[in-house]
Amino acid sequence: MVVEIVSVGTELLLGNIINTNAAYLAQKCAELGMSCFYQTVVGDNRERLRQTLQTALNRSDIVILGGGLGPTGDDLTKETVAELMGEKLVEDTISREWIEKFFQSRGILMTENNMKQALAPEHALILYNENGTAPGYIMEKDGKHVILLPGPPNECIPMFEKDVYSYLSKLSPYVIYSKMVKLCGIGESLAETRIEDLIKTQTNPTIATYAKTGEVHIRVTACAENEDMARKLVKPTIKILKERFGDRIYTTKNKETLEASVVKLLSKNDLTITTAESCTGGLLSGRLINVPGASDVLKSAYITYSDKAKQRILRVKRSSLEKNTAVSEQVAAEMAAGAVRAAGADVAVSVTGLAGPDGGTDENPVGTVYIGCSVGDSTVVKKYCFLGNRDKIRESAVVAALTLVREEVMLFLERIKN
Amino acid sequence: MVVEIVSVGTELLLGNIINTNAAYLAQKCAELGMSCFYQTVVGDNRERLRQTLQTALNRSDIVILGGGLGPTGDDLTKETVAELMGEKLVEDTISREWIEKFFQSRGILMTENNMKQALAPEHALILYNENGTAPGYIMEKDGKHVILLPGPPNECIPMFEKDVYSYLSKLSPYVIYSKMVKLCGIGESLAETRIEDLIKTQTNPTIATYAKTGEVHIRVTACAENEDMARKLVKPTIKILKERFGDRIYTTKNKETLEASVVKLLSKNDLTITTAESCTGGLLSGRLINVPGASDVLKSAYITYSDKAKQRILRVKRSSLEKNTAVSEQVAAEMAAGAVRAAGADVAVSVTGLAGPDGGTDENPVGTVYIGCSVGDSTVVKKYCFLGNRDKIRESAVVAALTLVREEVMLFLERIKN
Repeated sequence: MVVEIVSVGTELLLGNIINTNAAYLAQKCAELGMSCFYQTVVGDNRERLRQTLQTALNRSDIVILGGGLGPTGDDLTKETVAELMGEKLVEDTISREWIEKFFQSRGILMTENNMKQALAPEHALILYNENGTAPGYIMEKDGKHVILLPGPPNECIPMFEKDVYSYLSKLSPYVIYSKMVKLCGIGESLAETRIEDLIKTQTNPTIATYAKTGEVHIRVTACAENEDMARKLVKPTIKILKERFGDRIYTTKNKETLEASVVKLLSKNDLTITTAESCTGGLLSGRLINVPGASDVLKSAYITYSDKAKQRILRVKRSSLEKNTAVSEQVAAEMAAGAVRAAGADVAVSVTGLAGPDGGTDENPVGTVYIGCSVGDSTVVKKYCFLGNRDKIRESAVVAALTLVREEVMLFLERIKN
Repeated sequence: MVVEIVSVGTELLLGNIINTNAAYLAQKCAELGMSCFYQTVVGDNRERLRQTLQTALNRSDIVILGGGLGPTGDDLTKETVAELMGEKLVEDTISREWIEKFFQSRGILMTENNMKQALAPEHALILYNENGTAPGYIMEKDGKHVILLPGPPNECIPMFEKDVYSYLSKLSPYVIYSKMVKLCGIGESLAETRIEDLIKTQTNPTIATYAKTGEVHIRVTACAENEDMARKLVKPTIKILKERFGDRIYTTKNKETLEASVVKLLSKNDLTITTAESCTGGLLSGRLINVPGASDVLKSAYITYSDKAKQRILRVKRSSLEKNTAVSEQVAAEMAAGAVRAAGADVAVSVTGLAGPDGGTDENPVGTVYIGCSVGDSTVVKKYCFLGNRDKIRESAVVAALTLVREEVMLFLERIKN
């Protein structure tokens, strides 16, 4: 089946918003084994929208339109599609009640133009919107399928997941199943080199690598008649990847993040952690605390941006700061060791570096970051040189810190086991 | 002038990447006063690319193509465009040297297929790429303009800024100038109501409101022959907005963030700040420290996630925690007051709340957040009920905390002035 994605909205043409819906819909259609040859963005203009839809219907089996279902006069996706497909618009009682209830529950006054959203193409399947007032629609005619979805991602995506995915999967003779193998502490080119033979000979499943900040994700994708068969096709490749990358793999769960895997590792082993951050200023603890259940492992954390704060809160020695400056191996080590003591935690990770834009020296250029990790009585420090702007350097430092914690905790668990 | 944006790449059709380039290019073209009626995404396929380009040339004056300029056999944007425009591809010596130098400077071995990128359409203006190996091109024929840019945003955007913007501005008879008025501490509907009359009667400049998390941005856009004239058109509306919103406006600088305006306010008045975070776990301090120069105002900060950490580090009373729980007005107040003392700062802001997904009660449902702010001897606490998932609640809390700091510091400055 060939699918085409048409996004309707002047905000997209003006570049006021980024078309994340198109990427989401494209990804889901690819998962369903559908081919997508074109995506189009067109404004809220009846004639141009009609032409775009006509072209899409001529060359595709399924057209998914997003946007232009709002209550105002500008919104004309539904009207244009209905006209082209020879459908009358009639009031749908359930839509009407749905919209009325939506406004009542929020205590907002409904205006009469909202009732425009209760009009539905006569023979359309109506998709009720749990997150807004615009219903979606599915229409079929002459073997073609047209799907209308609301524009806001928080309405479009839940509606797609709830109603459209299952509708489309029935149209598609096969499914695409992907599994992610996520690595940290290894560069993309090295990772690729290690699996060059697999990439070269791939057919089904296929293998693709994606470079993320400080991480490499390998996607293994199989195509089969049903999900069970696709899963079976993927399995042997996952096994090979596990053999080749060992504990560089932090997860094979598609949605698990590096910070979630670190929290899980600590929690499973009844270990607590604290952080002592300078240049990352709370981003690292913020990432950890974003994991539901992080309160079991992180009780307190410190941001010590000034030299004085490092001395007062973490007991970093004044002489160490004077001799080595704050961005040094010695200070990173004292920060980590001091944080373990101050928080009474099992593990501490410290970050001190130069995120720029100013402050770089020949010895310590912008991007130099020292990361320390204390587990039990032992403290290690690693030096990193990150590239990019302030944001990028800080993000890289956070990922490197999570990676170092993961490594050191695994080594510690190894040690106490023996 | 009518411009059309064509993005070339199978990754876009598969939804593996989000089309941020299209939004960037659309925004810039709108700034230049150009109309954009269509954006298209098409894969690396000669026939479909040819058809897309032909259609675009028929209905637009300028076609900007992004992507498909790489060294591999898949990349065929240049070849297809040259063929359609009747241009031969010839080797460009400067491109060749440029590419060789690029590889040498990085110590990477150049493969022969990279030399494909030294071939240029015979009469094209060549845009040398400072961030990669693929040059861009500008071609003109029969009054139509075709611009080819590399796909990676870190190559596409600098090349557009350096060479394409000035080329396009010469084609456009007028410019579009926008100024942002950014508000905090006011909801979108209230903000809109206050300027309903302006929105209704707008012509040139136009006014649009954008809701951000905890903020409202108002964009005032004028169209004129040159930037000076456009600036003059915008000025009176900005003045009216300043009168109507007063100090709800935290900046009228297009790129200034709320956290930057808070750091500026503190720094200008020689005040230091500290943060005491529970549910936001470092996100607030992270936002502040992301502002260059934040080290002048934020020396240390605390993440006190557990009750014990709140007692030990911030001297929150055990009885307060027992009587009120950690998510309470009393504890938020003690956290802020304790942080001021612990850090020796002039200002402290505390955040304690329930970001979910679990832990909500009837009295304190998920989304309940208390934010405290101490300035000098006075401490205020506000209670908030935020909607959304864990991420959204935490982001809302960070913005509310910044807003509260801004308000309290301004009140404090008012007080000491009188």
